Amino acid sequence: MGSGSHGRGEAVSIYNFMPLIISFVAVATAGGLYAWLRGKSPGNEKMLSISSAIREGATAFLMREYKTITPIGIILGVVIALTSGIPAAVSFAVGATLSAIAGIVSMMTTIGAAPRAAQATEKGIGATLLTSFRGGATAGLIITAMALLAITVLYLIYPDPVSVAGAGFGASLVALFIRAGGGIYTKAADLGADLVGKIEAGIPEDDPRNPATIADNVGDNVGDAAGMGADIYESYVVTLLAAMLLGGIIGEIPLVIYPLLIGGSGLIASIIGVFTVGGRNVENPMRPLTTAFLVSAALAVIINAFITLQIFGASQVAYSLLAATILGVILVPIIQRITDYYTNYVYGPVKEVAEATKIGHSANILEGISQGLKSTLPLAASLIIAIAASYYLAYSATGESLYGIYATAITTMAMLSLSGIVLSIDSFGPVSDNAGGIVEMAGLSEENRMVTDKLDAVGNTAKATTKGFAIASAALAALAMIQAFLHEAQKFFPGKAFEYSLTNPAVIIGLMVGALLPFYISSRLIKAVGATASRIVEEVRRQFREKPGILEWREKPDYARVVDLATNGALRELLTPAAIVILTPIIVGVLLGPEAVVGVLTGAVLSGLYLAYHMANSGAAWDNAKKYLEVLGKKKTPEHAIAVSGDLVGDPYKDTAGPALNTVIKVLNTVAIVFAPIFIGLIAL
Amino acid sequence: MGSGSHGRGEAVSIYNFMPLIISFVAVATAGGLYAWLRGKSPGNEKMLSISSAIREGATAFLMREYKTITPIGIILGVVIALTSGIPAAVSFAVGATLSAIAGIVSMMTTIGAAPRAAQATEKGIGATLLTSFRGGATAGLIITAMALLAITVLYLIYPDPVSVAGAGFGASLVALFIRAGGGIYTKAADLGADLVGKIEAGIPEDDPRNPATIADNVGDNVGDAAGMGADIYESYVVTLLAAMLLGGIIGEIPLVIYPLLIGGSGLIASIIGVFTVGGRNVENPMRPLTTAFLVSAALAVIINAFITLQIFGASQVAYSLLAATILGVILVPIIQRITDYYTNYVYGPVKEVAEATKIGHSANILEGISQGLKSTLPLAASLIIAIAASYYLAYSATGESLYGIYATAITTMAMLSLSGIVLSIDSFGPVSDNAGGIVEMAGLSEENRMVTDKLDAVGNTAKATTKGFAIASAALAALAMIQAFLHEAQKFFPGKAFEYSLTNPAVIIGLMVGALLPFYISSRLIKAVGATASRIVEEVRRQFREKPGILEWREKPDYARVVDLATNGALRELLTPAAIVILTPIIVGVLLGPEAVVGVLTGAVLSGLYLAYHMANSGAAWDNAKKYLEVLGKKKTPEHAIAVSGDLVGDPYKDTAGPALNTVIKVLNTVAIVFAPIFIGLIAL
Repeated sequence: MGSGSHGRGEAVSIYNFMPLIISFVAVATAGGLYAWLRGKSPGNEKMLSISSAIREGATAFLMREYKTITPIGIILGVVIALTSGIPAAVSFAVGATLSAIAGIVSMMTTIGAAPRAAQATEKGIGATLLTSFRGGATAGLIITAMALLAITVLYLIYPDPVSVAGAGFGASLVALFIRAGGGIYTKAADLGADLVGKIEAGIPEDDPRNPATIADNVGDNVGDAAGMGADIYESYVVTLLAAMLLGGIIGEIPLVIYPLLIGGSGLIASIIGVFTVGGRNVENPMRPLTTAFLVSAALAVIINAFITLQIFGASQVAYSLLAATILGVILVPIIQRITDYYTNYVYGPVKEVAEATKIGHSANILEGISQGLKSTLPLAASLIIAIAASYYLAYSATGESLYGIYATAITTMAMLSLSGIVLSIDSFGPVSDNAGGIVEMAGLSEENRMVTDKLDAVGNTAKATTKGFAIASAALAALAMIQAFLHEAQKFFPGKAFEYSLTNPAVIIGLMVGALLPFYISSRLIKAVGATASRIVEEVRRQFREKPGILEWREKPDYARVVDLATNGALRELLTPAAIVILTPIIVGVLLGPEAVVGVLTGAVLSGLYLAYHMANSGAAWDNAKKYLEVLGKKKTPEHAIAVSGDLVGDPYKDTAGPALNTVIKVLNTVAIVFAPIFIGLIAL
Repeated sequence: MGSGSHGRGEAVSIYNFMPLIISFVAVATAGGLYAWLRGKSPGNEKMLSISSAIREGATAFLMREYKTITPIGIILGVVIALTSGIPAAVSFAVGATLSAIAGIVSMMTTIGAAPRAAQATEKGIGATLLTSFRGGATAGLIITAMALLAITVLYLIYPDPVSVAGAGFGASLVALFIRAGGGIYTKAADLGADLVGKIEAGIPEDDPRNPATIADNVGDNVGDAAGMGADIYESYVVTLLAAMLLGGIIGEIPLVIYPLLIGGSGLIASIIGVFTVGGRNVENPMRPLTTAFLVSAALAVIINAFITLQIFGASQVAYSLLAATILGVILVPIIQRITDYYTNYVYGPVKEVAEATKIGHSANILEGISQGLKSTLPLAASLIIAIAASYYLAYSATGESLYGIYATAITTMAMLSLSGIVLSIDSFGPVSDNAGGIVEMAGLSEENRMVTDKLDAVGNTAKATTKGFAIASAALAALAMIQAFLHEAQKFFPGKAFEYSLTNPAVIIGLMVGALLPFYISSRLIKAVGATASRIVEEVRRQFREKPGILEWREKPDYARVVDLATNGALRELLTPAAIVILTPIIVGVLLGPEAVVGVLTGAVLSGLYLAYHMANSGAAWDNAKKYLEVLGKKKTPEHAIAVSGDLVGDPYKDTAGPALNTVIKVLNTVAIVFAPIFIGLIAL
């Protein structure tokens, strides 16, 4: 292996273009799916007008976000150009732009798919499932392809992973704004719509008379679809970069290109998986989705085996890396299963939360918190076993610790390589959720609503389990990036031996700062939802008061104003936490050096991983306990009222603070790696 | 300094006995206060009978606990004797026994003081305050004196801090059972009493007809008084040991003895502080307590200055160590202020929580969580600044990193040296709380109840702020002990260089395991409260059903059965979490070596510190938001009902899971240091 074997060197240069080709195939496939979707009927006039209102609101949100990010991005780009060079600045711009495009495209397709899925309810569940899923798949494939494409193209232009690293920060910056901003938006709009609509005015969910309805539906798209897409895009880019950087540090070109190939393999497998889903009417809509995933996973393992043996020959190294990829692929369903167990009402934990509503509010809250906290144990166990095993196998094969660390990054990359199919299944959720909203608002029949309700339930399961996937990948991506950062920082100081040891007080202080961030940022984001929601509540009340005709269907509510309020509120509340996250590694680096920065990065993963998973699962458990009571026919009972209030506690947990922590722990890393020259330069002075 | 200066060497050997003498003075003072208390009238027959029922229940709880711990302790003692030698086993036994005695003595005095304080209400608030405070001070001084005495005596017998380290584990083991077991007991009894008594039967709090009333009052003593005492005792012992161990590693005898002297200085200062509290009738009962603390703090600084200059001369080292002690003393009021700000209803945060009750259950819960999460920022900032400054000053003075680390341990020791006065003020809380219960149960007048209510409010503030003190000291004690462990572990392997670096996967895995523990253990403990409470609810319902005369005052409820149920329930629920905490460092050590163990210890501090502080403060905020509404005269309003339900969520947060984490992060450390020979021996094989 390495520079000695010329034949393999050539093979590698051919492989170089493979991820590029696969990315284009994926984009073309997504284009084909999109064309197929556009060919479907978008329903009647009313459905179209609702869908275009949602599109307008969502576009307004993203444009406002991008308008805020652009000047920040330009300033940061200039700083990066000055400190880390032009290639890093170009990479930063590419990473950010493609992330922004992925956000727009994925949101537009899911929004476009919703009225078509609503219309498909006329043909039954099979057709609706297919339409929703292909809408989701368009987004899923585009996002993954964009991530792979960005890094591959940049690497072909600048064949040095350090120069490409800027792309990670670009992706992170956009992801932070979409994920956390979208998280505030979606829950504030949801809360605002419910508090005045359902509770004060007594009108049902998604009722067109509610001025916050469009904002609420926009929120589902910006929070769930665009947010998850940006989050996974970022994890994908960060992991790919970390693995390539580690490969570069070991100093063997095949190790640098290998992660790109694993990405390509998973993407091809995802494309094939997408096409296993057909339009037959099915009893359990989860089944075809599970099949699609399993097909993709199996294919990925086979392709990975082929690639690994081609590049590394039938060597110990090859077997250990292959094992690392298999561990990564297996992690996906394991994490999904664990998450499903704690959040799906067919299992014990959610039933216990539902049972607790009989005792009262506090029992329900405590049970949900306790179950969410408990779920961190199996998650931790599976992550620890996976990275320990991949490290140990590669370390045994080579005797080099760095190989072991590289293998853990490969495990993470193999896990994320399935993002295409995972996101397709996930994005199916918001499409069917929105389709349900359109069915309601357009006044279609009860039967049509039942179709979307059934799909929505499946979508909710998918959404919850994808959250687990996103949290685990964020943590693993960050851990891989920390190791890359460690070794990169070393390069600036060939002479100096940095002490990343727990005997170094700078490391301990860094760890304390890092572990604090998830707690403090969560507090800000939870508050942000409340603050923004109360502005929406006031606005909705004002509209009902000043235009009494709205409730009697005589006047049209001003949807746009609520969308504006939610957008501005979310952005305003986000700026301080975002600044804290971006500035912390820089300030700590300047004051205490790279050792403390590594402490910050590690500390944030340690508390962020568990806090995020606890919040996501506690939130989902309350939500599904409420749904469980509804399935049992207990709507309108005191228990149900208690469950509704638990769900409201869970909303900012699972859809704002929890997911935002994913981007927080990654942004810290990409900031650190891009701005390392600054604080390392200052130490040198 | 050091072995060169013979004159100072002699001075040191005299200083050796100073902590011993001060401990005896403290014990004698406590005895005097106790005699003074016994001389006060314990009130009428009814009050005496209630108090003796509480004493019986509390004794039953502690005896059951000790019966469970004893066999575990004997097995562990034998293992320690075999692996770490007889001195360590003797130290273990002494540490555990004195901790157990401190628990009994402090609980008995606070229980004995309660009826006397209840009786003193007849004479007005000044007399009641004095009686309650002196009851608290008896406990506070005894506990601190026991901790100082244990280590001093052991060190005089075995003049080697490593041999004495077993005392830390002994203290930890007992503290874990009292703190976590007491935490489950107190909240389960409280919840059980309230759910059936207040809500189902409609009888007031502390009503003698409620079969769970005695258990509830016992709970206040075992949870608040004994639990806090055991917790601080443990932190004190652990910090003292860590500082002495670090002094031993540097290899200078004065550095080993210095922490004992700092302990002695704080204890003398505390004794004098206790006597500044008189029996005058005061408008604000908080004022004399604050004065007592400030007098003690000022005296401690002066005595510390004297000692430091005596031992180390007018050197750079002396000034840096003196600065470290001053930082430690200042930390106490700073942490108390921060905690007070987030938990006292005179400030914004609690008012916001109270305000949120207007919106609904979920807003109240989210506001409480958000405020608790937010409070971690100023706590972290003050701890980080204090340890960074003390490290930096000592490092600058000597150029040695180890001196810097030693100085951070001294900062922690100076903070804990004020335990005597801090615990006196804290234990005042349960005494006046119990006095209030006795006033109610004995049917004294409304005016008497108003006196105890006023003191109870002050007691609640003291309790909340002492929790902050306990959490901060636990985290700092653990951090100091981790450094001691690191260097001790090294001694077993003079040749091998352990890699405690964040580049070492064993360290990362250890950190992930450690950071997980607080989340998982919290989940178990929150569940434990619910499970035990529901057993109590069933029992109380059964008594009301089978003895209908109870509610009509014709039959006596069976208090003892409820006490039994609560005791057994708490112990049963505690065994698994306790086993997890004790076994984790041993298993990780055997499988992955000391590097991973250090990871576990550090990870647990990182997430445990913030999780505990969040839980303690969120819980206190809900509690005091409820009290704020009561002060505003909003009892029986819908807002108040919502606040009550928030308080119920907060109960296991602030009184079970939060405080238990303190002992968890310390037990891990003492287990690691005592059992290090086992897993280090296994690696050597």
